[in-house]
Amino acid sequence: MNEGERLTELAKRRGFYFPAAGSYGGAAGFWTYGPQGAALKDNIEDAWRDRFVVREGHQEISAPDVMPEPVFEASGHLDGFDDMIVECAECGATHRADHVVEDATDIEEAESLPNEEIMDLIADHDIECPSCGAALAGEPVENFNLMFETNIGPGSSSPGYLRPETAQGIFVEFPQLSEYARNQLPFGVAQIGKAYRNEISPRKSLVRVREFTQAELEHFVDPEEDEPPLSVVADVELPLYSAAAQQAEDGGQRDLTVREAVDEGVVASDWVAYYLGVAKEWYERIGVDMDRFRFRQHLPGELAHYASDCWDAEAEVDGDWIEITGFAYRGSYDLDKHADHSGEDYTVFKQYDEPVTVERPTVDPDMSYLGPEFGGAAQQVADELAALAERDPDAFDGDEVTVETDGEEYTVPVAKTGFSVEEITESGEHVRPHVVEPSFGVGRLVYTVLAHAYSRDEVDGEERTYLDLPAEQAPTTVGVFPLMDKDGMDDLASEIAGDLRSAGLSVTYDDAGAIGRRYRRQDEIGTPYCVTVDYESIEEGTVTLRERDTTEQKRVPIDSLTDHLVALSQGEASFDAL
Amino acid sequence: MNEGERLTELAKRRGFYFPAAGSYGGAAGFWTYGPQGAALKDNIEDAWRDRFVVREGHQEISAPDVMPEPVFEASGHLDGFDDMIVECAECGATHRADHVVEDATDIEEAESLPNEEIMDLIADHDIECPSCGAALAGEPVENFNLMFETNIGPGSSSPGYLRPETAQGIFVEFPQLSEYARNQLPFGVAQIGKAYRNEISPRKSLVRVREFTQAELEHFVDPEEDEPPLSVVADVELPLYSAAAQQAEDGGQRDLTVREAVDEGVVASDWVAYYLGVAKEWYERIGVDMDRFRFRQHLPGELAHYASDCWDAEAEVDGDWIEITGFAYRGSYDLDKHADHSGEDYTVFKQYDEPVTVERPTVDPDMSYLGPEFGGAAQQVADELAALAERDPDAFDGDEVTVETDGEEYTVPVAKTGFSVEEITESGEHVRPHVVEPSFGVGRLVYTVLAHAYSRDEVDGEERTYLDLPAEQAPTTVGVFPLMDKDGMDDLASEIAGDLRSAGLSVTYDDAGAIGRRYRRQDEIGTPYCVTVDYESIEEGTVTLRERDTTEQKRVPIDSLTDHLVALSQGEASFDAL
Repeated sequence: MNEGERLTELAKRRGFYFPAAGSYGGAAGFWTYGPQGAALKDNIEDAWRDRFVVREGHQEISAPDVMPEPVFEASGHLDGFDDMIVECAECGATHRADHVVEDATDIEEAESLPNEEIMDLIADHDIECPSCGAALAGEPVENFNLMFETNIGPGSSSPGYLRPETAQGIFVEFPQLSEYARNQLPFGVAQIGKAYRNEISPRKSLVRVREFTQAELEHFVDPEEDEPPLSVVADVELPLYSAAAQQAEDGGQRDLTVREAVDEGVVASDWVAYYLGVAKEWYERIGVDMDRFRFRQHLPGELAHYASDCWDAEAEVDGDWIEITGFAYRGSYDLDKHADHSGEDYTVFKQYDEPVTVERPTVDPDMSYLGPEFGGAAQQVADELAALAERDPDAFDGDEVTVETDGEEYTVPVAKTGFSVEEITESGEHVRPHVVEPSFGVGRLVYTVLAHAYSRDEVDGEERTYLDLPAEQAPTTVGVFPLMDKDGMDDLASEIAGDLRSAGLSVTYDDAGAIGRRYRRQDEIGTPYCVTVDYESIEEGTVTLRERDTTEQKRVPIDSLTDHLVALSQGEASFDAL
Repeated sequence: MNEGERLTELAKRRGFYFPAAGSYGGAAGFWTYGPQGAALKDNIEDAWRDRFVVREGHQEISAPDVMPEPVFEASGHLDGFDDMIVECAECGATHRADHVVEDATDIEEAESLPNEEIMDLIADHDIECPSCGAALAGEPVENFNLMFETNIGPGSSSPGYLRPETAQGIFVEFPQLSEYARNQLPFGVAQIGKAYRNEISPRKSLVRVREFTQAELEHFVDPEEDEPPLSVVADVELPLYSAAAQQAEDGGQRDLTVREAVDEGVVASDWVAYYLGVAKEWYERIGVDMDRFRFRQHLPGELAHYASDCWDAEAEVDGDWIEITGFAYRGSYDLDKHADHSGEDYTVFKQYDEPVTVERPTVDPDMSYLGPEFGGAAQQVADELAALAERDPDAFDGDEVTVETDGEEYTVPVAKTGFSVEEITESGEHVRPHVVEPSFGVGRLVYTVLAHAYSRDEVDGEERTYLDLPAEQAPTTVGVFPLMDKDGMDDLASEIAGDLRSAGLSVTYDDAGAIGRRYRRQDEIGTPYCVTVDYESIEEGTVTLRERDTTEQKRVPIDSLTDHLVALSQGEASFDAL
């Protein structure tokens, strides 16, 4: 078994995740998180909320999963969110056309090629259906929209779509959200929620799925004024794999601090650099192995049309680099689109410190002169005069002014143009904010953290599998075991379990089987501490506290057990120092 | 404005909830929770998880929203999860046929009538289209399935549905979940997640919506052995409105303790009574007004076919009783259905304390006799003999035995039947668990808690609106204000806000406008405490701490502020005693 297979086996057996609806053969790309997985996912979401929402002073919302069609007309997903598919005429199976080409040729980014070229490549390379082996040459390569479609209400007159990203639920509500932020930039709005993509070929368990959880932050900033608090993360080291390095023959990853990356221009946007720094520290906290981690810049051909710079956080599992987060500077693209399509106001009114007086040249042409003089062209001439006044007020310095419309020149005495320069006092201006977006895939984080936590060693001559999850992330913090189910040990153990639960710890009580087997069960789900209640516990008021990674054990008084475990689980104490 | 309208206005203005995608005219029945609402909803979910999962020792999972068709074939939703609709031929609007009948007649439960009768009622009462006023008489009344349908993968060969309840994501995985519980009954599995119903006429803001959050617990119990820990809640008083009382002319609500309700048989199931008790205390904790609350038993006609007894927790808002939770004893209905449809094993193997020896009568007919004797009927005769042996072994006491098949009688010498009684030792039996289900609608809880928290009084001669939310549920725990944005008050206030956030409190920093206005803003979102930093704070190291409901203020040393607020927010200290 390779790393991925070992993980999938453990995940199913111990209740992290498994294919959903397996009793009916399941549906590819849909997974159910079992008790351990749901708890781990929840803990990762809480840690994200703590770092990216609470500590940053941002706000969190929760928008619906189903949204009406106009939202995705505006966002561009209705037209552009496609994959290429080819259907086998023989067996009816559908495949991603770019993937069959990549698998059969040396081409790496077939996604960026036009459909016709993919068709040609399929024919030229005699590519066969991966399912049945029939020739695919000549089969049409078509676009398949990845959004799940449904109907809102009876009939089909109101199509709705499962959102392909949580971000649109934030962008579309900008006018309302901006009011909640009292129209003060910068402000950030986050959302943790489901997103859905009707993948043609789901694969690699939690990596490419059809329903997943995103944690997205949309940070709205004034592009001319706002700057990130870079000093907070200036010294954080970033493992950067830039586009230039990817394209160079001998290019590799470079470790630069956030400050260096900005000063050298490796990361173009200060905002993106700031979030790379924040995220790097956060990944370490939740248990991503920094020796199997990098930030990779998008290649020019890979960049979304709206993004000026984009970096992915990538983690290595099983030899593959998996994108776990995208960091994009999206500019005003999304708000522009929604403003255009909805006609609503997607700006923030920025008050000047002092009102500003500006000169505004205007005209007020004498139509009783222009009319008889220019006939049907009079109104056009008037419009051109107005445009000229704004463009080049100096043109009105002489006695006459000449404008052109429909290829004809018209000369007008300045006196008949009503030209004047007004002084206007403005208290502020409407600003369309830019958007900085860190977008996390929670399922992929779960997968990465589990893969990187997966460990094996030998204990008492037997091979042991354990997950060295950080205590804060572990689904269960403490396992409580009575040595035997009698002589009061069970009652005392139950009481201790209850006390630990009241202190907010996640506790498992287990009285089945030999103590060694109970330790192994907890090791395999990454429980950092186990407490065993034995005869000495009843006589002396102490228990055995056992640490997962070292398997070391210490006697601890029951009185101070809760305090110790709370401190240990929050990283405020160390087992060694107990 | 009535209570509902006042609430909707406040909810939108202050960021609790508002219609989603309003820039595009929205889509009825879809709401976005703003920053305050998302936080309140999150807090209610956490309180639910704490009480119904952690403290009960249950487990939580997270299943997908989109599930394949066979799941809903088995559950009965594909065939039976319908509302009646009637479409106006004039304007094309669709309406719930039972609702238009209820609105135009004295009939109260039109949903339970057959479609033809609804059609007749529409004709008899000359009911008109509520949208355009055209006559609806003669228009067909049809069933409309309330599940949102979509397609999984390309093409339409794999229909999928947005789950109409989170419960099916638990039931369908029972074989796997039972393994995680090491096949020991009882065990409970919970899920908090989205559910979707394509309502024909969404209404009353968060009450009847198309996408909502459920918190459901499926408690799997051995119907013959398991009993709830009734003593934990025996003395909890339940406001019960029984089916009998609803049907009696002078029937009303009765307050009975859980113990009395069980002893008098008012609540038939001990398990349901247990959860009514647990839930009652929990509703109080999260801020449901117990003067506007009751448990109402389903009327016989209202009961789902699978439920032997069902009670709803109902809260009064605006004169209407809203169902906020359903408590159902579902028996083995759901597991039976999935076992039948999938052919998988939906049982738990229950080990006997001691192996049990049972007598099992069997036959082993002599076909070399039956064949020539009965010709083509020989095999049927053999089958009938086997059935008879099981049904009535005494029939084999004589020399001959007679069976009937296809209307013919066949007499066989007992010696040729191979009849014998075997002794079989069984170590246990397969048990199909019963299900006890408390099912909470989280959005309706948010709505109820807000409505019941909505308060008005007069402060300093001005009318004030505030939400008297419990501190544990309030979206923001503390507002921190510098009296002025200068002389170090802003820096000190920022520092205090940071310290409070580090202690896990939800903090809002506000330096805009007069202090009185800032208090009002926090009052309107239910923030229980506000801290004001003034000149004295810098000189003496104290701040003003203000309580929301009484508007009382006290000076508190900055050193002990965090401890005080943590204790206050967890209900471990009182403001009076400060």
